[in-house]
Amino acid sequence: MAQEKKLVEAITPMNEDFAQWYTDVIKKADLVEYSSVKGCMIIRPYGYAIWENIQKNLDERFKETGHENVYMPMFIPESLLQKEKDHVEGFAPEVAWVTHGGQEKLTERLCVRPTSETLFCEHFANIVHSYRDLPKLYNQWCSVVRWEKTTRPFLRTAEFLWQEGHTVHATAEEAQEETIRMLNVYADFCEQVLAIPVIKGKKTDKEKFAGAKETYTIESMMHDGKALQSGTSHNFGDGFARAFGIQYTDKNNELQYVHETSWGMSTRIIGAIIMVHGDDSGLVLPPRIAPVQLVIIPIAQHKEGVLEKAEELRDRLSKVVRVKMDDSDKNPGWKFSEYEMRGVPIRLEVGPKDIEKNQVVLVRRDNREKIFVPMDELEDRVLRLLDEVHEGMLEKARNMRDSKTYTAVTPEEFEKIAAEKSGFIKAMWCGDRACEDMIKEKTGVTSRCMPFEQEKISDSCVCCGKPADKMVIWGKAY
Amino acid sequence: MAQEKKLVEAITPMNEDFAQWYTDVIKKADLVEYSSVKGCMIIRPYGYAIWENIQKNLDERFKETGHENVYMPMFIPESLLQKEKDHVEGFAPEVAWVTHGGQEKLTERLCVRPTSETLFCEHFANIVHSYRDLPKLYNQWCSVVRWEKTTRPFLRTAEFLWQEGHTVHATAEEAQEETIRMLNVYADFCEQVLAIPVIKGKKTDKEKFAGAKETYTIESMMHDGKALQSGTSHNFGDGFARAFGIQYTDKNNELQYVHETSWGMSTRIIGAIIMVHGDDSGLVLPPRIAPVQLVIIPIAQHKEGVLEKAEELRDRLSKVVRVKMDDSDKNPGWKFSEYEMRGVPIRLEVGPKDIEKNQVVLVRRDNREKIFVPMDELEDRVLRLLDEVHEGMLEKARNMRDSKTYTAVTPEEFEKIAAEKSGFIKAMWCGDRACEDMIKEKTGVTSRCMPFEQEKISDSCVCCGKPADKMVIWGKAY
Repeated sequence: MAQEKKLVEAITPMNEDFAQWYTDVIKKADLVEYSSVKGCMIIRPYGYAIWENIQKNLDERFKETGHENVYMPMFIPESLLQKEKDHVEGFAPEVAWVTHGGQEKLTERLCVRPTSETLFCEHFANIVHSYRDLPKLYNQWCSVVRWEKTTRPFLRTAEFLWQEGHTVHATAEEAQEETIRMLNVYADFCEQVLAIPVIKGKKTDKEKFAGAKETYTIESMMHDGKALQSGTSHNFGDGFARAFGIQYTDKNNELQYVHETSWGMSTRIIGAIIMVHGDDSGLVLPPRIAPVQLVIIPIAQHKEGVLEKAEELRDRLSKVVRVKMDDSDKNPGWKFSEYEMRGVPIRLEVGPKDIEKNQVVLVRRDNREKIFVPMDELEDRVLRLLDEVHEGMLEKARNMRDSKTYTAVTPEEFEKIAAEKSGFIKAMWCGDRACEDMIKEKTGVTSRCMPFEQEKISDSCVCCGKPADKMVIWGKAY
Repeated sequence: MAQEKKLVEAITPMNEDFAQWYTDVIKKADLVEYSSVKGCMIIRPYGYAIWENIQKNLDERFKETGHENVYMPMFIPESLLQKEKDHVEGFAPEVAWVTHGGQEKLTERLCVRPTSETLFCEHFANIVHSYRDLPKLYNQWCSVVRWEKTTRPFLRTAEFLWQEGHTVHATAEEAQEETIRMLNVYADFCEQVLAIPVIKGKKTDKEKFAGAKETYTIESMMHDGKALQSGTSHNFGDGFARAFGIQYTDKNNELQYVHETSWGMSTRIIGAIIMVHGDDSGLVLPPRIAPVQLVIIPIAQHKEGVLEKAEELRDRLSKVVRVKMDDSDKNPGWKFSEYEMRGVPIRLEVGPKDIEKNQVVLVRRDNREKIFVPMDELEDRVLRLLDEVHEGMLEKARNMRDSKTYTAVTPEEFEKIAAEKSGFIKAMWCGDRACEDMIKEKTGVTSRCMPFEQEKISDSCVCCGKPADKMVIWGKAY
């Protein structure tokens, strides 16, 4: 128990220093390691296994909705990046430039892709000619680079992994449908797979993606009350199509511009998993993406029959869940702490007394509930329990978010909440950029989104007092 | 049939111009598209689906042999690249250099990884301390960049996709075992999944990887008689460990250097699939990685009951194979050509007469054999047929290779074969680098490997005539 205590003490408590707690968890749970490459992280096996499970689930959802994977070059010639004015203004300040290939200076600089709209546009212009070629529903899994000054593993790194969907459609309506469809895929994925409740909404013009007509977002709340933009879906209208000349001949033999979308989710979402579900003992992983869903810890494993039984259970359970047995010579207390730190959803303990009673003990990571289960009901009970853990985590996260969500009608109320609390603020907005800017300047809080589910908090803008019919969710963001 | 003919004629016959045939196939089968990024290719959905199937199968094999996936930064600081002398000499001339991040000039140049030994070494030095930390068996899926002057899709591009395994071990024996184990994984994968026969062997010092103690390779033969290095596995000994200071404390509490390996396979292997199996009608895909294993073409689909039957068959077959039905309004002849071009292993034809007889027609892509199958035996027959196609393709490729493999005892014989034939030449070598250089200079042929399966062609070196006990496979290489 001394060892166990030491391990737990090694994490800074959340309430003491949330940022340090985060850093402690990602290191102690072996998710990442730092490297000598400034601003870049090494994703270690346990962290990467989480990403693989995320990829697998998302990729299936993309394919079910008719998307195909492709791979574009990682470099973008400077002239290509410059073709869409808003887009280059948004990204040029934060890209890495390749100037030399081998011993030679390049005639044109190449940037390492910060996102691939320009490459996809060029490709679409080459392959789309007729209405018969539409829609094209593409996705790409890759890494992208954005030169960030201050970085934090998963949340903001110079290089990160993501997927970027890029689609072209014959009509504006189809593009809008696609934009919302993929936002819904992200929202459903977050709630049903990651147990993270999200708010779906539209970004204000100030916060939208460089070059987009409209940006939609899912916003989640971290344990410290800050918001994390967890996935975005953009409708480009025909802006990029006009800049890149992506046209098709319609059924009446007339030339039309295509309508385009893009949407992305990144390794950032692993930061959300950590900060939504984690606690002072470490990670708490949602069962549907946990690399290990259940860990078996034999108790008094030197006693006759214990290891054999543990192995038998592992073999049985490995047919239905991702299971690991730890029969190393560390003491059980140390192992308990270790797998709590790693956020394994269920711990199974089996010792001589359990074997005598033909039962095992299951312990939930999320709420530490202990459950005694007859051995012959094990598979069924474990499968059900994983679902219960998922539901429990989702509800807990929703309650946490709701308890940190406030409403403000007057500027004074807004400023007081922004100064004293950390969380979401619901307040009305007139739609004027000046008000948005002023709120940010005065309180440090930004508009997260205009939620699809609107509420009427009042009739007037929380900033200028003019008539307002948009409710905005405001918050400090990662 | 006119359309069909046109489509087929659009490919240059192999015997007329093999390079042009290759280019025609990859374009007509929609595998790749060119982009404005010099030397880089766009991998289109059909090409990427092949890569996904390769990845899935290889990844399972890596995990079964105990390996874990990780992700390293894509950049390598210049000073880190320079730590191992041979390695930097081999790679520095062909890397892309990032010199600016955003608006600022970097204090140290970063190269875009051409391979990640140096990053893994730095990481291993950080995380390996005791014999308890060993072995570390890591793999990474990523893209790498090598600045090539002349490029060809899949075979040689500035950027390509690959996996790179990197492992560290306590002893030289374990590292050697790992090196050979992974070579065998590659060889088995090529033969059992891609139907490509390979020759396993060791590279000469001249041809080994920059920084390796020993490089092992699998070599396959393309339809034009040229060799393609299809996968390599390197034993680094403790060379990198000494350069990067990767040490561990052994059981006797003494400091030891680790022993390291790396091994890689890339999208290049798709080039091998095309050039080993393809024919003048286009691609011939090995069934185990074909994105579509069977395509259903309804005949006289406007007639009553045909489409319904085709749909019923699709639904049945989709439970056991990757199936597609094409009920577009193109004529069957056009569809036949289209799916031949795309290399779909089996075509299923079903029309009114077949329905009457309660049968379907299966047509093999590899040898065009037609098989009539009773509808109620369909699933079994298709599954068996896919295996038969695989075996047939493997045997055909082996026969092709053997028919283009020659032996030479004297320099004159060697030169004559090299001048008149295209294929592998088996000949003895004394082990002297000078002879290897001279053979290359005189004939343009290089040593592919010293095969594990040695044969005694003669007693003396084919170049200098001195005693020789090594048989080398020589050939022109991609």
